[in-house]
Amino acid sequence: MKNYWDFYLTERIVFGNGSIMRLDAVLKRLKAQNLLLITDQGITKSGLTTKVAGLLQDWGYQLIVYDQAVPEPPVEKAVECYEFAKAQMKIDAIIGLGGGSSIDLAKIVALLLAQGGHPRDYFGENAIDHPIAPLIAIPTTAGTGSEVTSVAVVTDTENNIKVGISNNYLRPSVALLDPELTLELPPYVSACSGIDALSHAIEAYMAKDFKYIQAEGEILFQGSNPISDTFALQAIELLYHNLVTAVQQGTNLEARSNMLLGSLFAGIAFSNAGTALAHALAYPIGGAAKSPHGEITGLLLPYVMMFNAEVQGKKMSLIAEAFHLNCSQLESRQQSLLVADKVLELLKSIGLPTKLSSIGVKNESLPGIAEKALQIDRLIRNNPRVPTKEGLIALLEDAY
Amino acid sequence: MKNYWDFYLTERIVFGNGSIMRLDAVLKRLKAQNLLLITDQGITKSGLTTKVAGLLQDWGYQLIVYDQAVPEPPVEKAVECYEFAKAQMKIDAIIGLGGGSSIDLAKIVALLLAQGGHPRDYFGENAIDHPIAPLIAIPTTAGTGSEVTSVAVVTDTENNIKVGISNNYLRPSVALLDPELTLELPPYVSACSGIDALSHAIEAYMAKDFKYIQAEGEILFQGSNPISDTFALQAIELLYHNLVTAVQQGTNLEARSNMLLGSLFAGIAFSNAGTALAHALAYPIGGAAKSPHGEITGLLLPYVMMFNAEVQGKKMSLIAEAFHLNCSQLESRQQSLLVADKVLELLKSIGLPTKLSSIGVKNESLPGIAEKALQIDRLIRNNPRVPTKEGLIALLEDAY
Repeated sequence: MKNYWDFYLTERIVFGNGSIMRLDAVLKRLKAQNLLLITDQGITKSGLTTKVAGLLQDWGYQLIVYDQAVPEPPVEKAVECYEFAKAQMKIDAIIGLGGGSSIDLAKIVALLLAQGGHPRDYFGENAIDHPIAPLIAIPTTAGTGSEVTSVAVVTDTENNIKVGISNNYLRPSVALLDPELTLELPPYVSACSGIDALSHAIEAYMAKDFKYIQAEGEILFQGSNPISDTFALQAIELLYHNLVTAVQQGTNLEARSNMLLGSLFAGIAFSNAGTALAHALAYPIGGAAKSPHGEITGLLLPYVMMFNAEVQGKKMSLIAEAFHLNCSQLESRQQSLLVADKVLELLKSIGLPTKLSSIGVKNESLPGIAEKALQIDRLIRNNPRVPTKEGLIALLEDAY
Repeated sequence: MKNYWDFYLTERIVFGNGSIMRLDAVLKRLKAQNLLLITDQGITKSGLTTKVAGLLQDWGYQLIVYDQAVPEPPVEKAVECYEFAKAQMKIDAIIGLGGGSSIDLAKIVALLLAQGGHPRDYFGENAIDHPIAPLIAIPTTAGTGSEVTSVAVVTDTENNIKVGISNNYLRPSVALLDPELTLELPPYVSACSGIDALSHAIEAYMAKDFKYIQAEGEILFQGSNPISDTFALQAIELLYHNLVTAVQQGTNLEARSNMLLGSLFAGIAFSNAGTALAHALAYPIGGAAKSPHGEITGLLLPYVMMFNAEVQGKKMSLIAEAFHLNCSQLESRQQSLLVADKVLELLKSIGLPTKLSSIGVKNESLPGIAEKALQIDRLIRNNPRVPTKEGLIALLEDAY
């Protein structure tokens, strides 16, 4: 049995409407003068790149803009951005502005700026052993939690696979969250990113207790602990009660603010506790279907909750409470199934698919998916119920 | 109205029984080889200095030990320790081991190692503008929360006053909390430090919301926000239900562990939200009485809660819930008074004084205390009810 837990967090979090104006104070504290802003074409088209760049120039900073981030950025993008910036000036700090992809790309560029080399040098769990360059993450979606996490997802084009580079040094120095920047997010993106955050929160909360995680050496995802539980449960409450409103009334600032706070809390929780089975299954399914990551984890979430219905009864009853369900008279398993059913209803309310068959997964691929998921030890060992291949195939057939 | 909040935290927290053995992994991540261990005579007499020094030497580190920390250390102690260490080798990291005083002293020495000068150069709120040397704080009491806070209390012997040096750069890099190190704490010290932690938690939780704090520029104590509230409320629950056991059964490891976790959470909360009226009053009373800080804030706490009984009703009812009181049928003010009364009962259960007259405060000094407390703007502006001089005198007479 393990007797300790380790908890990491970004040193500074700034949160609030209009807090983009705090960027100047944040940069001053970091003593940064020469900046690299990394973002994507969507953000540039929305006018936000011009707005932020304008502010930075008004405040007197030297700035290079790179707005070519793409989802699950190929590692070559990081090299391209790094070479592009390095050729122009010595960068003091990086600003990652956008969804998870822009921030993830910014993390890898910050890594290269601090340590040189190629992104491929840093694949694998303990391959980074120095701090990255100062990075300020400004999310414009409420989903990945990348602004506080230790993970960057990139595409290794050489081997044509998605790779998660995970290391506690990848956490940004500062997370700056301004709910007003998320008002323009279209309903479908709001739905996918919001349900992704809820998956993070529920999986982190339900994760096996740190004491019982079987692993040697320094591990990143450590199972749940008292701090991750606190953040996860609050995230569950915030996300569950605000997701439908955020999707259906995009300009509802209160719902947007609660979603952004919820996804931040979920990011804090899962980047320490880890996620579990829904995320393990999402990896091979992501290879078979072209849906966004959040759509896949969201779809899987209720079925994984049903699969786990016999375990973590106490925690499930606290999720029921966070959902404001009145079901304390139900026995434990029934309560768990009711909670899972509410997540299924939520998916329907925000217009997301609830069946693997509807996102292009083939029935005959299910055994292969189960097999591949079982190999992702860092997530599988976190699941509160030990999965078998047969059990996972049954789960996937339920979800089919 | 302020539209944002800022939240700072120590980058890494390690918590658990026997987690002192994690010190090697922590130091490796910091790439520290030459260490300065700062502690006090009590810790040395208990054998803990020898134990920790022995571990560090077995692991191959170079080590200098300074075990002359004293309560509210005179600034000269910091200079003495700094000169002593500097003369022997270049220090890579500092370990502060002990109660709040050892850790506070370690913060000031870490400041001098990074920036030189004299402690007096850093009095005042924004006088530190660079990171301090890497500091690992290992608390042996469950009270001050200094292992994660931005505050160091020292004595300015030249002017014969207690000075709080407060700055977000003063937060240790790593907080390492091992409940087993707190088992030897005598009942009275356990009581004083534990009630101090509860005062931090309740004052941070009841603090005015960040939106309504009236202050210009960068401030350290920002009023309550969603993260500080989360930590504060959990701290309240942990501390309230474990303090009596920790005092009465010192070797109860579960109670000790919950107290240490509670004081950590309280430290996280109050070092962002700030404390309020009980701490403002404790400063001038600390000048008039020779009681430990925790005894004074603890004594004041229930009277301040009564003073605030008309405001923050919703939060007070959540404290009642955290106390496991069944009083939802009471009207708001009655509920608040009941909660305050429970704190008064708690003081009695752990053998601490509940009246100012019993700790040597003179009745005629009460108006002067009220006046001085009102000048501590950073705490007074945090209090949910605006205090007047007459109101404070009445409060102090209640507590007399």
